[in-house]
This record gives sequence, structure tokens and C-alpha cells, in this order.
Amino acid sequence: MKIVKAEVFVTCPDRNFVTLKITTSEGFVGIGDATLNGRELSVASYLEDHLCPQLIDLDPSRIEDIWQTFYKGAYWRRGPVTMTAIAAIDMALWDIKGKVAGLPVYDLLGGASREGVMVYCHATGHSINDLLDDYAKHKEMGFKAIRVQSKVPGIERSYGISKNQGEAYEPAAKGIRPNVESWSSEKYLNFAPKMFDAIRNKFGFDDHVLHDVHHRLTPIEAGRLGKSIEEYSLFWMEDPTPAENQEAFRLIRQHTTTPIAVGEVFNSIWDCKQLIEEQLIDYIRSTVTHAGGITHMRRIADFAAMYQVKTGAHGPSDISPIGMAAGLHLDMWVPNFGVQEFMGYSEKMLSVFNTNWRFENGYMHPSDKPGLGIEFNEVEAKKYPYQPASLPIARLEDGTLCNW
Amino acid sequence: MKIVKAEVFVTCPDRNFVTLKITTSEGFVGIGDATLNGRELSVASYLEDHLCPQLIDLDPSRIEDIWQTFYKGAYWRRGPVTMTAIAAIDMALWDIKGKVAGLPVYDLLGGASREGVMVYCHATGHSINDLLDDYAKHKEMGFKAIRVQSKVPGIERSYGISKNQGEAYEPAAKGIRPNVESWSSEKYLNFAPKMFDAIRNKFGFDDHVLHDVHHRLTPIEAGRLGKSIEEYSLFWMEDPTPAENQEAFRLIRQHTTTPIAVGEVFNSIWDCKQLIEEQLIDYIRSTVTHAGGITHMRRIADFAAMYQVKTGAHGPSDISPIGMAAGLHLDMWVPNFGVQEFMGYSEKMLSVFNTNWRFENGYMHPSDKPGLGIEFNEVEAKKYPYQPASLPIARLEDGTLCNW
Amino acid sequence: MKIVKAEVFVTCPDRNFVTLKITTSEGFVGIGDATLNGRELSVASYLEDHLCPQLIDLDPSRIEDIWQTFYKGAYWRRGPVTMTAIAAIDMALWDIKGKVAGLPVYDLLGGASREGVMVYCHATGHSINDLLDDYAKHKEMGFKAIRVQSKVPGIERSYGISKNQGEAYEPAAKGIRPNVESWSSEKYLNFAPKMFDAIRNKFGFDDHVLHDVHHRLTPIEAGRLGKSIEEYSLFWMEDPTPAENQEAFRLIRQHTTTPIAVGEVFNSIWDCKQLIEEQLIDYIRSTVTHAGGITHMRRIADFAAMYQVKTGAHGPSDISPIGMAAGLHLDMWVPNFGVQEFMGYSEKMLSVFNTNWRFENGYMHPSDKPGLGIEFNEVEAKKYPYQPASLPIARLEDGTLCNW
Amino acid sequence: MKIVKAEVFVTCPDRNFVTLKITTSEGFVGIGDATLNGRELSVASYLEDHLCPQLIDLDPSRIEDIWQTFYKGAYWRRGPVTMTAIAAIDMALWDIKGKVAGLPVYDLLGGASREGVMVYCHATGHSINDLLDDYAKHKEMGFKAIRVQSKVPGIERSYGISKNQGEAYEPAAKGIRPNVESWSSEKYLNFAPKMFDAIRNKFGFDDHVLHDVHHRLTPIEAGRLGKSIEEYSLFWMEDPTPAENQEAFRLIRQHTTTPIAVGEVFNSIWDCKQLIEEQLIDYIRSTVTHAGGITHMRRIADFAAMYQVKTGAHGPSDISPIGMAAGLHLDMWVPNFGVQEFMGYSEKMLSVFNTNWRFENGYMHPSDKPGLGIEFNEVEAKKYPYQPASLPIARLEDGTLCNW
Repeated sequence: MKIVKAEVFVTCPDRNFVTLKITTSEGFVGIGDATLNGRELSVASYLEDHLCPQLIDLDPSRIEDIWQTFYKGAYWRRGPVTMTAIAAIDMALWDIKGKVAGLPVYDLLGGASREGVMVYCHATGHSINDLLDDYAKHKEMGFKAIRVQSKVPGIERSYGISKNQGEAYEPAAKGIRPNVESWSSEKYLNFAPKMFDAIRNKFGFDDHVLHDVHHRLTPIEAGRLGKSIEEYSLFWMEDPTPAENQEAFRLIRQHTTTPIAVGEVFNSIWDCKQLIEEQLIDYIRSTVTHAGGITHMRRIADFAAMYQVKTGAHGPSDISPIGMAAGLHLDMWVPNFGVQEFMGYSEKMLSVFNTNWRFENGYMHPSDKPGLGIEFNEVEAKKYPYQPASLPIARLEDGTLCNW
Repeated sequence: MKIVKAEVFVTCPDRNFVTLKITTSEGFVGIGDATLNGRELSVASYLEDHLCPQLIDLDPSRIEDIWQTFYKGAYWRRGPVTMTAIAAIDMALWDIKGKVAGLPVYDLLGGASREGVMVYCHATGHSINDLLDDYAKHKEMGFKAIRVQSKVPGIERSYGISKNQGEAYEPAAKGIRPNVESWSSEKYLNFAPKMFDAIRNKFGFDDHVLHDVHHRLTPIEAGRLGKSIEEYSLFWMEDPTPAENQEAFRLIRQHTTTPIAVGEVFNSIWDCKQLIEEQLIDYIRSTVTHAGGITHMRRIADFAAMYQVKTGAHGPSDISPIGMAAGLHLDMWVPNFGVQEFMGYSEKMLSVFNTNWRFENGYMHPSDKPGLGIEFNEVEAKKYPYQPASLPIARLEDGTLCNW
Repeated sequence: MKIVKAEVFVTCPDRNFVTLKITTSEGFVGIGDATLNGRELSVASYLEDHLCPQLIDLDPSRIEDIWQTFYKGAYWRRGPVTMTAIAAIDMALWDIKGKVAGLPVYDLLGGASREGVMVYCHATGHSINDLLDDYAKHKEMGFKAIRVQSKVPGIERSYGISKNQGEAYEPAAKGIRPNVESWSSEKYLNFAPKMFDAIRNKFGFDDHVLHDVHHRLTPIEAGRLGKSIEEYSLFWMEDPTPAENQEAFRLIRQHTTTPIAVGEVFNSIWDCKQLIEEQLIDYIRSTVTHAGGITHMRRIADFAAMYQVKTGAHGPSDISPIGMAAGLHLDMWVPNFGVQEFMGYSEKMLSVFNTNWRFENGYMHPSDKPGLGIEFNEVEAKKYPYQPASLPIARLEDGTLCNW
Repeated sequence: MKIVKAEVFVTCPDRNFVTLKITTSEGFVGIGDATLNGRELSVASYLEDHLCPQLIDLDPSRIEDIWQTFYKGAYWRRGPVTMTAIAAIDMALWDIKGKVAGLPVYDLLGGASREGVMVYCHATGHSINDLLDDYAKHKEMGFKAIRVQSKVPGIERSYGISKNQGEAYEPAAKGIRPNVESWSSEKYLNFAPKMFDAIRNKFGFDDHVLHDVHHRLTPIEAGRLGKSIEEYSLFWMEDPTPAENQEAFRLIRQHTTTPIAVGEVFNSIWDCKQLIEEQLIDYIRSTVTHAGGITHMRRIADFAAMYQVKTGAHGPSDISPIGMAAGLHLDMWVPNFGVQEFMGYSEKMLSVFNTNWRFENGYMHPSDKPGLGIEFNEVEAKKYPYQPASLPIARLEDGTLCNW
């Protein structure tokens, strides 16, 4: 069997998604997600102009060899664009392998290790009261794990908060120019404990409560935050500080036992090697889509398991339903599963991607169909051409560009 | 002053180059190199589709702020595609700043620290005798530092060796499919010392002799190689093992005092932080083009200086003459300069890029004109449209994909 | 262009300042600050007797080479006298380069990264009530960041407290003999938290509150202090213990998340290498004047940025307005800016130094004129000859000489 | 008893020396050496303008309190100028204390631990043959320990080599402008082993052979050198690499058992803390004159003893005979004595400083008179006014300023 076609689709059913479709000489078709929020076309070009032509005539069963060829053969390794392109190919090949075998992908990985995949949702509020309402709403929907974010008094636009209360939050703004948000660590640090206090006071300690700091603090500030919210027993605090300098987490770790989740921006095992081997984190948030596909994510998860670090994959709508499906298959199998983020998709998105998965009582269940179990509707996709969109940037009160 | 235009040009005068041109409201024009060998169009898309539109109306004097905006604002940081795109913008802005100031870029960085930039060339041979001849030829041309590579008996195609003796070596093959080379560490390790023995026996110890291992060995093999060639006093052995796991160099370092150069594939300071702070290398080979521009390369070089690591930038023709010019300006200033690779450019390439630099007696001299002192000829460039080309891959004798 | 004159001026408009003036063959003039509080004439001699004669005929554009020549060429490296002398030359040369380029110095460094430079002022009191009044006064003046110091009950003369409430604090006493102050860590540790409690109770948590421990505690005492004031959310506690033994800060760091600022007495990157790379501090307080000029301070700041350490430069009136101007240019550019100390200057001082900067709403704005944008009035300077003055020393209650 | 006078003398009997003379109310007189080669007047100013006036009326018996006052009370601590000034005061006070007690200084320190002080001399040559002759000459004079340096073929002027064979070597050149020497690590590394081979071949292994690398190598080069000369059993190789980054010596230490001496440029215990506590060196070369006097050098030696590091003090003629005398007293007492450098002094110098010490059979014997046992002849001193002189700088072959 040979690969005979490799096509890239960019579609924007409410938001941009990049999809790779591989067709084999025996008619098997595999699909992969190549979406990199705000840099979609660069990945599309990486695939279309550089990798897809090289795929033709290769044997699709040789997933490992193809992965190594595109990783080592790139010469210029790693990075979000490269690893997202490789991931899309890898996902599509696993999809094909599943279809060839007549088995769902999780079955090829070693079979299901659990009955369902616990997912966490997002509760947000323009005020603590709004947040409490939104939390209650999500709790009623059956979620066992809820991420909470609130507008911070004195900060015009906070990460994770939609413009109007009740609207879905989407950070990427249509148009080419990024929105400019503002930030003040002081205001945030003074406010955050109150939010958790309100949640735990009202809803008790039975749910998993999560929170995303979104790279905004210095290590010592993150240590202070973790310490100041220990009594609220968070499931995790996410991305407390930027992680290029992995040693930075040592300082946070000295000061608090609040669990730490990091890694939605990582694209390879090298981005988290020290974080994991020094046990500086508790959850690794890397995704199949951005970290080199199932082949590479499996290795990250296995390495993490050695140090009792669990998975907790990124999963907002900037991962396409294909990437989400691949993530769910990994989640079903991986022994050291922690939790899976899940924000859901709009109806328009679901018209393009037929997901076949199932949400019930706080748990997701991937499709049991062969492969990833998800279908890509090219006809619908073509209705929604690419529209430029950009993630925001953030500036401090004096105008300094800071971490968004 | 504002940026009013940002254009991307892909041209192939013998090989592909990606050029960014920024024009300001006061008519100043800056150019930058965005060439990433074998992945050129992905970088072109990253710039054209994502960054260029965002540049319009920005103040070109704010180089640092623009750098931070595109680095932190990308959200998905680092990686070869991203950092090459940022580098091109950074170079073009320093070019503009130099023109505004009426000063060459090295003067803005702190002025010249030396009279000229020592460059090293490549001597290669299909046999040791051929290599000796080629070495003699380059020595006569005035080079003080010469990299030596030879075909390894029993290995069909070795890195660094042109197809026919005497031809310029160009690893990237025209066409979309990579050449497949072969590799055997055993054959190489048995052969390499003989090559250095022949060189030193014939030419003595006055020249700087360099050698590129090109990522092929394991750490213990690299330690063995370094130890076995100590008596030949190499200037450096380059890329003895892949460097994603920076700790790997500790093992090499325990066994040999042969100096080590690493980093032509790096794109940020995080790729070499541990290598440098643990003194695991002696030369850092990162370039302005691939490591985020002058703004970021200056930081890498300054960090390296604290640990007595010198610069030794990558400089084959896959860096466009613009990137080479930017590199030479950095080389002229940087206090901890080691050496600069220089392979030269074909006449066709020089018809597109008017370099204004000067080679004399083993030293390069960057232009003294304001800015980078290099001109991009758009009319000539248009004559040479993009042609797909790809770096090779390598396989062991049993077919295993290995590091090229 | 060559340097044709290098002159040193010592003037005492209320306090002593040492100024270096460099004149070039094309008539460009650059000025630099060489003031070292209490050791002014030794630096003046270092320049006048040893470095100035060597400057004649050198090319002023070669700032880096001149820096390296005086740093490495001194043979006896580092130290406050040496590095202040080198700093003055470096500042003057950047002033000249800016004038040659027609650009303000911050533009040469990479352009403005913010709209203005947040400065902090000093509020002091002979009692907590006096301090609250003084704090209110400074808050009204628009300061967003206020350092608080109070007389400690039972300690005759405390650091940072003027003799009479309401007078400007000036530690250096006229005359050759230092004032002798007293110290008791026990009394201070018992008192300090009350001061912060009063401030936060009255003024809330919106302002940045800073405090200077001024090297008085042992590491374990500093850990105790930091821990005991965490609830008051200080912006920083400064110089909690002497820093010659950089490891000493590990102990403090284990015990508290109160941010730490250190370094007004440092003169090179080697004084803070371990403090920074082990993340033992959060703000580096070194100055352009005492730490080798713009060339070296830029390296310290860039090194600090890798470890998320921000700048927070020393800035009382023992830095001359020239050094303050150089600091403000650095502050405008440096990506990892934290805050700048600013105590202001007397009218007499401003008659000698025409500053061209602007304070507004808690922010300073450096001049936009070419170079440093500050002028030195030699005629006025001559009216105020040098007057011996000395910083105080401190003794414990039993007479032991301790850290002031 | 009080100090009633503190005077500074700068004299140039062939070379510049700075001498401090303290007179007490009871007529005791103490002298100290404040010579800092090439920066003499800055130290003289530090003393004359800042410290001497503060000495008046202090009790000269309180050596420790005065040391702490000038060290901690300077506020801006450490550095060559500051510590040399403090050293001169400290030496003069120990001289007085000895005279008050009627005892030589070594007796106050704890008494003699040995019969004499082994010193090493300098043998040099414009060629290896010249060196062998000079070595033989010094061996005949009775020296048990001989430092060997030779001109390096291809390097115009090497460190340690006089202009004409047979002349005394004096690096500081008369006149304000430093001589510019050249350097090539490659030429030196290829040559050095031959020099030791010739020495050991001709003179055997009975003498202590020393060598000064004078800060010229990178750590890996120093490791290579040490490894390549192990068979010649050097007493030490000195200053193999600059020591600001003390960790740099770890790399040298991994590769060789050749003993290492470092520290003639150090001025405080903080410059060598890590070098000593990690056992990265074997001899500490700091001096009484430059490292804060007898009070501070005793502490450095005691700290070194904990890690089996021995003393091996710097002692060319840029330490005045007073500093040498102080060093010899320390050497007589210090339990972990290694060796003392001794170049001797010209007749003219000895007309100004009456030394009273004795050299015999390779050993020095300090005077047994009370105090330091050395007299300063003011009348002779005045005959030789200060003459500007400067240590050389060194540049690489491309013009880059490098370590001299």
C-alpha cells in the first residue's frame, strides 16, 4: 500500500482549522489536525509545499519511519509549525492504521484503561457572582471538573473572559491585528484568592476546581499565589509562569503544594524534560496536535509516568475536532491519565467535523469506529474560507509588552 | 516614522532565498533574510500571511518592542520557522536604524572590536589525497582556518562531500524528494583520525583545522573521537552528537579536551542555555538568520561570553547574503568572536544581492555603508523563481533512519 | 574621528558629583557620571591620572573595544572605583554615539519598550503617624510606588530617616568623619510589620510598597522578616542581608515569597551571577554609574531577563543627573524593566545639570534629544568646589561595627 | 594611644611604589604598602583624600575594628583600589603593634612554623636554549623552585619575557600608554610542552618547576595544556584562565592533575570562595598588599587550609618591599604555606626601603626586628618622583583585545 494523495484544507466554520487528508492506493483515507491558532497558513504551507509531496509513494504503515524522516530529516527540528505539521501526518496515518485493522486507535495503543475520559469545562464570570452562576450551570451539566476564571477588578480585559457575560470565550480576534489586553500581576494576586474562597464556600470541596494563570506571573509571584490558595485545594494551577527556563519552576515548587499543570504551548518532549524529571509539575498539558502527533505524545506521557506526572491535555476549540478525537483515544489508553480539557464546538464546526464521540455525566467517550472515528466534510468545509484571526497580546499599565 | 510596506520575495539564483523588505513612511528601506533551507515557503507564509500585515503602521525604531511582540505574542514560541521569520524582521529594522543613523550596524552595536572577521572555508576530498590537494588550494587563497571533510571508505555518500571531486558541495537537492545518504559510525570512527594525521603531517600545526561530525555520533562515540584526535589539535569538532538533550555533552566533555562547536540548528538561547552554563561547548554556531535576528543573537553571544564560549556562526550558502552581512556586522563587534563560516556565493547569487563586503587574506570586512550595507536587486530576483529543493536524509546500513 | 580631550570635574552643588567630559576631533562632546559617594576623589584620580591620558587619540565609536581595554587592561579588575571610572567613559561614549547618529540613546539600544519609566519615591517618618502623612503626600504627587522607612523605636538613628521630620534625607555627612548610627535587629524585627500594617490599613493594596532593609539582617532573620510581612504584599524588600556570599540568599528564599531586590552596591555581573541564575532575587538594583556603564548594565539586564529577574535601579541623589539620565534611557528600552528609584535633585544641582527629562503622574520620561540629552554647565559647576563628605557607619548596642 | 598622622608617599626608584606612614601619639611609626601597579595614584587618593583624615584620633591597637570600619563603612566594598588602601593601613597597624610589643609580626600571628620561606624565582629565555642557561644560573644561586617562561615562536612579545635576553623583566612600561602585546593560544599550546621537556631532560625532576599561563587560555585549552604536560610534574600552572567565573575551573580540573595556582589579582576572600571550597585550585596567590592586609589574608589562608589549598603569594617587584616583608611574616607563620614568589629589587629600590631580610640557599628569612622590620627612607624616596607607567594590553592577531 502506498500513499497516493495528501491534501490540505483550511476552513473557518466560526474559527480557522487546518486539516490534512491522506489517501492510499487501497482507498483508505486518514485525516489529521494541523491547526496552529493564529499561524494556520504557515503550517498549511509547511505541509502543502514541503511535506505532502514527499509523502507520495511512501508506505502508510511505516508510521515510525515517516515520523523520524520528517523529524530528523527536517534538519531544523522542533518548533510549533514543524511539530504541528508532523502531528497532522502522524494522526492521519494512525487513522489509516485503525481503518486497516478495523479497530479504534485506542485499541491499537494498548486498549482502553478506563470507562470514560473525565473532562473539565470552563466557568467564567465578569464578577464573582457571575462566576458562581456559571459554575452552577456547568455543575448541573454533569461536569466533575471545572476551570474557574473571573474578570479581575481594575483590569480592562482579562484572559479567559468573554466580552459579554454568557458569550463563549474566544481569544483569537478576527482580522489581522491582535487585540491588546492589559495586565497587572498585583491586582490579580490581590483578587484571585477571593474567587476560590467564594467557589469553595458555595459549592464545597467535592468538585475538581482548576485555574489558568496563563503565564502571567514571575516565579516568586507564582509561589505566592500557590501558597495563598492552598486551603482551597485546587486540582491544579496552570501555566503559573513562562516555561522556557524550566528551572524557574523550582522556586514555585519550594513554596507551595498547589499542583501545577504546564505545557499547552510545548511541541516536544524537550520542552518539558527537566520539568518532569525534577518533578516540577504534576500535569503535562501537551496535545497530539501540537506535540508531534500520537507517536510523540505517547512518548511524552510514558516519560511523565516515570515521575508520577499525569496528562491533562489542552483542549479548547483551537484544537480541531480531529485533534480532540486523537486526544480522546490517547486519554482512553494512557495509564497516567489526569484530565482532558473540553470546551465543545459550535454547530457550524460540527457540520464540518462529524465527531461520533459522546459526552455523559462529566465523561467523554471516543468513537468506537475504526481509526479516529471522525469524518471531515469537505463540501461543508469549502463553504467557510480562511479568515485572518490573531491571538491577543498583552501590555502592562506602562505599555510594556508582557506575556499573554 | 511608520512602516508602510512589508514584502516577501522568494528567489532561486542557483538556490532558494527568502527576503523580507520593509519600507517606512520616510522612505527608508530595510531588508532581512528569512531563508530556512528546505522549508522556505513555510517561513514566507509565516511572514506574508501572519506578520507582515501586523507590521503596517508600527514604529520601526521600536525594534525591541516589535521583537517581543512577535516572540511573546506568537503564543506558540520558538522553533525554526517562527524564529527565522522574526529574524528577518529584526534584521530589516536594524538595517533601517543604521540608515536613519547614517552608521553601519556594527557601529550601533558598540563599534568594531577587530580589524577583520576570520572566516573558515571548506576543504573536501573523495580521498585523503584529494583532500590534501583541496586543502592546499584553500590555504593558497589565504584562509587561516579550514574545515576538512573526506569521503569515508565504505560509505557511499558522506556529509559534506560533493558528488564529483572539485564541485561545490550543496547538500540540498533540487526536486521535492530528499536524497538518501548512508551512514556507519564504525567506519567513520576508524577513518577520521587518519584524515587529521595526513593534514597535520603535510601542513603542520599553524592553520586552524576544523571538522564537522554533523550530529552522527552517540555521546560515548563522540568522546572516543575527541580523545583519539587530541594530538591533531583541532580548532573544533562540530556537532558531535544531536543536542536536544543538552546534558548529553557532559559525557563527551569528561573524555576529551578537543574543543566543541554546536548550534547551527538552534533557534533560541534556550536551545543552548545548559550547554553554555555548564561549559559543555566552546563555540556557539547559531546565526542571526535562524536565531531571532541581531536582537536575540546578541543576547546569546553575551550569555556565552560569561562562560568563555565564543561565537562561530554557521555560514554556508543557505544563509542568504543578507544574513551573512548581518552576521559579519555582529562578528565585527562581538567581543567573544571565534570564527565565521564562509562558503561564498555564486555569481548568479551575487547578481541578486550586492554585498559590498570584502575578503582579504583570510579575513572578511563588512561594508561600512549605513545599515547592513547590502542591496537586494528585485529585478534580478524575479528572474529566478522558487524551485523545490530538499536537504538529504541518512539511513544506517540496515535501513534505519538516522541523524543526517 | 578621535578623542582629543578628556576632562574630569568635581563639583558640590549641595553634594559632590564627579563628571567626565570627552571631546572629539569633530567637536562632539559626551558626558558621563563618575560619582562614588564618599570616595569621589579616588575615582576622579583613577580617571584623570590613569585613564584620561590613554583615551586621547582613540576612536570614540569603538565603545566595546575601549570598554574591554579598560576592563581587561586594568589587570586588577572590578571593584567600585574601577567600574565607576569605566562607567563614566562608557556613558560619555554612548552620549557621543547618540549625537553622531542624531538619536536618543534608548533608540540605539533597541528603541522604547514603554511609554514612561515608573519611579518610586521615599516616604519616611519619625513615627508611623509621620510616615502615614509623608506617604499621603507622595501619593498625591502621583507616585505609584513608594518606599517606606520609619524610625525604629529604641534605635537612636535609623537608616533612611532624616534628622528632623520633613527634611530631605541625606546619609552622607559633610566633613571627613562619618556619622555613627546604631542598630538592633531585634528592635527592628519587632517593629517592621507594624509599619506595613499601618500603611496597608490606611491606603489599601493598590500602590506598590517597597522597603529597604539596608543589609542589616542575617539570612535567617531576613527569612523571618519576609515571612512575617507576606500578608502586606510588598513590591520588594531590599538588601535583606549583605550579598558578598551570594548563597546566603538561598536560606531567605526557602522561607518567604516576599520579593527581594539586591544590588545597589554591585559593580559587575559577577557580583550577582549566582543570585540571578539560582533565582535568589527578583530585582537587580545595579546602576549604569557603578556597574560599568551602559555596555555592562545591558549585559546584566539581559542575563537577568533569562531568569525573570527585573531591573530596579538605585537612584538616590548620589547618582548624578547624568547617571540618572543614562539609567532612564536604559529603563525606556530594557524589556525586563521593574521600577526606577528617583529621589529628585535640588535646584542648585539642576543649575549645574540641565536634565531635559520630565516627571508626570508617577512616570519619568527621558529626553528625546540625541545622546543622553543632558547638559553639564561648567560655569555653574565651578561655583561649588568639592567638600569632603562621608557615609555613616553603624554600631550595635555593644559598640561592634556592623553593616550600615 | 592615638593616631596623630597618616601620610602617603609616592616614589619611583625605577618603578612606582605607594607607601603609607602612620604615626601615633606615643611616637610609634608603622608603614604599609599601597602599590597597585598602573593605578597607583587612585589608591594614593583613596588614602589621602578619604581614609587618612578618618584615621586621626583612632586607637591604633584596634586593628580589627579599623579594618571593619573601612571595609563595611566604605559601603561600596571590595575591588583592587579599595582593598589595597585598606591593606596599607592594616600593614602599618600590625607594624605598630609589633613595635609596641617588641615582637616581629610573625610572632604576633602565632610564631614561626618553619625555619625559612621557600621562594621561587623567574627563569626566562628568548629561546629554549636561553631559558636553559637562565635556569642553570638561578639553580646555582640556590633556588629550589624556578618559574620558567620562554618567548613563543611566532608571538612577537610574550608575557614574562624581557625585551633583551638577560634584562630584568618589567611588564609596566614608562609613559601613560600601555604597550600592546600580541597573543595566539594555538602557537603557545603547540610550543609549551617542548619547553618543559627541555627543562626536565636537562635538569631532572628534583627542582620545583612553575609556569605562569597569565590568564590567556579558555578552560578547555587550559585542560588540554595541563593534560599535555602532566609527565613533567609541574609544581603548578598559574592562572590558566581568567577567574571571574570561578566555575570555569571545574572543566580544567576534570582533565588534569597538574596543580593549579590562582589569585594574584584577587582582592578578597569572595574572589576565591568557590575555587577553594570546590577544591578547584591548589595554591592561592593573593597578597597582603592587594587583598586587604594581614588581617584579611590570614582569613583567606585559614579558609584555604580547610580544603588543603596552600599559599603561594604573588611577589614580583610591583609589591613594594614593605608588602613583601608583610608577606614573609605571614609565610613564616601560616601552617599551609606553599611557596613565595620573589623577584628581588634593584639597588635603587633598596636605597628607599631598608629590608633587613635575608636570602639563603633558596629560603628567605624575614627580619626579627619588632614589627615588619623594614624601614622607609623618606629622603631617598623624594628623589624619585612618580612617573606614569602602565601594564601592557594584549591583542589577538585580528586586533581583538584579549586577556593580558
